[in-house]
Amino acid sequence: MIKKQIRILGVDDGPFHFGQKKTIVIGVVMRGNGYLEGVMKREIEIDGRNSTDVLLDMIRKTRHRDQIRVVMLDGIALGGFNVVDIERLYSEGKIPVITITREKPDFELILKTLKIKFPDWEERWSMIKNNKIFEVETSHKPIYVSCKGISLEEAKEIIRVSTIRGVIPEPIRVAHIIASGIVRGESHGKA
Amino acid sequence: MIKKQIRILGVDDGPFHFGQKKTIVIGVVMRGNGYLEGVMKREIEIDGRNSTDVLLDMIRKTRHRDQIRVVMLDGIALGGFNVVDIERLYSEGKIPVITITREKPDFELILKTLKIKFPDWEERWSMIKNNKIFEVETSHKPIYVSCKGISLEEAKEIIRVSTIRGVIPEPIRVAHIIASGIVRGESHGKA
Repeated sequence: MIKKQIRILGVDDGPFHFGQKKTIVIGVVMRGNGYLEGVMKREIEIDGRNSTDVLLDMIRKTRHRDQIRVVMLDGIALGGFNVVDIERLYSEGKIPVITITREKPDFELILKTLKIKFPDWEERWSMIKNNKIFEVETSHKPIYVSCKGISLEEAKEIIRVSTIRGVIPEPIRVAHIIASGIVRGESHGKA
Repeated sequence: MIKKQIRILGVDDGPFHFGQKKTIVIGVVMRGNGYLEGVMKREIEIDGRNSTDVLLDMIRKTRHRDQIRVVMLDGIALGGFNVVDIERLYSEGKIPVITITREKPDFELILKTLKIKFPDWEERWSMIKNNKIFEVETSHKPIYVSCKGISLEEAKEIIRVSTIRGVIPEPIRVAHIIASGIVRGESHGKA
């Protein structure tokens, strides 16, 4: 049984335009019931390789370190194709990780794009394909979920507890609104 | 009777150091129950004179314009002594304004400081003294409140509806956490 008081670190990146080198990453520390306790900001290289280190830095430095029970990411990459190594995030961060997306990942297209864009496409692809995605039913459309360090059943329960409206849990929804508002001047779109 | 669904624009400024010229101002659009709907960001001159214009710009440009029923400010100034003209904010923004502080304003000290720092101290002082402050009891310590465009009774009810823990309403508490997190990398302190 997952408590409403469970502390979650929800992460999303800011929007960016073609040609930009960096964007921001926002982390929000939130209870399962949606009560905001903290906000963190970092920068990340677009299509770079530092997303795992940036997230580990957030986890290690936050004053909420000892309270956070799970990290929630909006998909497996931040800043374009700056792919998160979920294995390493979990083993070094020592906190379970859940990823959530609204859309079913199109792995064929991802692989094709990686091959075109990146000489190191094999490393990026191995991080993506190692992260098994499950389709999870909701009262709306299904969502696409991965989990590391906890069971899929626990992940589903955490998602259920922390979702107020729609299908996206509050920690990711709020991280998205903040990241988007900070970059654009006013928030826009959905996580 | 104030509804839990009432949309509130809560505003707070980012922290700054001596010598800085500008800081950020964060506006959050939130329902009375604490559900976040939008985040805005602007810049403001420290000890400048543009806070009223910055807030009017936020109010006029936001997509939530037609839903916002009240503006909540953490005191009457942003960015040091960049004093908000509450009269003009209400008459031009056409939305009632509530200010809230934890500490009782020390008007003697404020006047003394204004006289030392600003050749235009009289204008700043007149905006401050025109804004009548009421001590409002809470279940914790009292807070200090002003209101323009609504009665004190309505203001108290809106504060009551939108306060979850402690004495500071969610729209201001969350604006503070975001502003502080964006500037420092991690949020810190209380609104």
